[in-house]
Amino acid sequence: MAIKQKMITLAPRSRGFHLITQEIEQALNTFSTIENGLLHLFIKHTSASLTINENADPTVRDDMENFFNDIANEKHYYIHTYEGTDDMPAHIKSSLLGNSLTIPLTNGKMNLGTWQGIYLGEHREYGGSRKVVMTIYS
Amino acid sequence: MAIKQKMITLAPRSRGFHLITQEIEQALNTFSTIENGLLHLFIKHTSASLTINENADPTVRDDMENFFNDIANEKHYYIHTYEGTDDMPAHIKSSLLGNSLTIPLTNGKMNLGTWQGIYLGEHREYGGSRKVVMTIYS
Amino acid sequence: MAIKQKMITLAPRSRGFHLITQEIEQALNTFSTIENGLLHLFIKHTSASLTINENADPTVRDDMENFFNDIANEKHYYIHTYEGTDDMPAHIKSSLLGNSLTIPLTNGKMNLGTWQGIYLGEHREYGGSRKVVMTIYS
Repeated sequence: MAIKQKMITLAPRSRGFHLITQEIEQALNTFSTIENGLLHLFIKHTSASLTINENADPTVRDDMENFFNDIANEKHYYIHTYEGTDDMPAHIKSSLLGNSLTIPLTNGKMNLGTWQGIYLGEHREYGGSRKVVMTIYS
Repeated sequence: MAIKQKMITLAPRSRGFHLITQEIEQALNTFSTIENGLLHLFIKHTSASLTINENADPTVRDDMENFFNDIANEKHYYIHTYEGTDDMPAHIKSSLLGNSLTIPLTNGKMNLGTWQGIYLGEHREYGGSRKVVMTIYS
Repeated sequence: MAIKQKMITLAPRSRGFHLITQEIEQALNTFSTIENGLLHLFIKHTSASLTINENADPTVRDDMENFFNDIANEKHYYIHTYEGTDDMPAHIKSSLLGNSLTIPLTNGKMNLGTWQGIYLGEHREYGGSRKVVMTIYS
């Protein structure tokens, strides 16, 4: 048993939901042999999120972007607006969706369901690159 | 210290929120001796969820079903509709509620609060049986 | 490698979101030497929550309180109302935000982003003190 940890940087993305399963798999492959255990992903930001959802049809990600805009954008009662109209909604989305994921590792691979993929939720217009701490227990 | 892992299958449920604490306890009892540590539950689906909430009054679960329908159902902007009108709302609910739980184990038992129970959120009309990966660190 | 666990009690707070990073840091310092690993926080209640968000401007916390009231409060369809009008909304908020956090530990410290702080979401008018189980893997 061992704990392994590293920080990775995700390339900048446009506002919306993005499938990052492959990037995470590639980063996972740079760790030495892993058997059964858990992978923890933690995004070090308060205007982005990590969630798991459908990995096949890209319109799911468009619908999610529209849904979260619908419920969180530009409410008349927001006071924290000096960083732009996309800032407070981004904080809300980050807490609604969460900033970390824990995924089982089985025989050295992420044990995701057939239709499950890892989404980065980029909630700012110009969020830039995003830092993720990966911690593995195996 | 040891890592233990197994997959269990939850019986099919109707759409709504269901208390599954007992099923998880029974599955936990099939693992060999556990002391302090963590239990991780991961549902391998994108149209169901796991959450913790009130374990006593079943109307809490009805109110939750009504609330999540109220905010997520049949928005005019959904594009991903070919799998039925309950599909895109199910994806949204899955990300709002989350697909995994981590629960402390203390003296071999889940250290839940007096009023806490584990809920399966079944968000499809006919979701069928649901697979959950259990991973224990102790 | 070792597992360490203790329960802490957070002082009673008024309804709303409260920054508790310092209290958690102080409790973390009472554990013996920790290197890399994970910290798991689990609040043993169904009407409070733990989330990570912006640690600088207190109006973010006010905006979050207003947002979650806006979407969850006093819906006409709630049946579970005998514990007060703040009770069912508190259960909803607890599941939307989540009742646990997992945070990477790096060189013995929480590896939070520059702007990340730990929030207690107190969703009852008079929630009283709140119990949190801390579990460390290092």
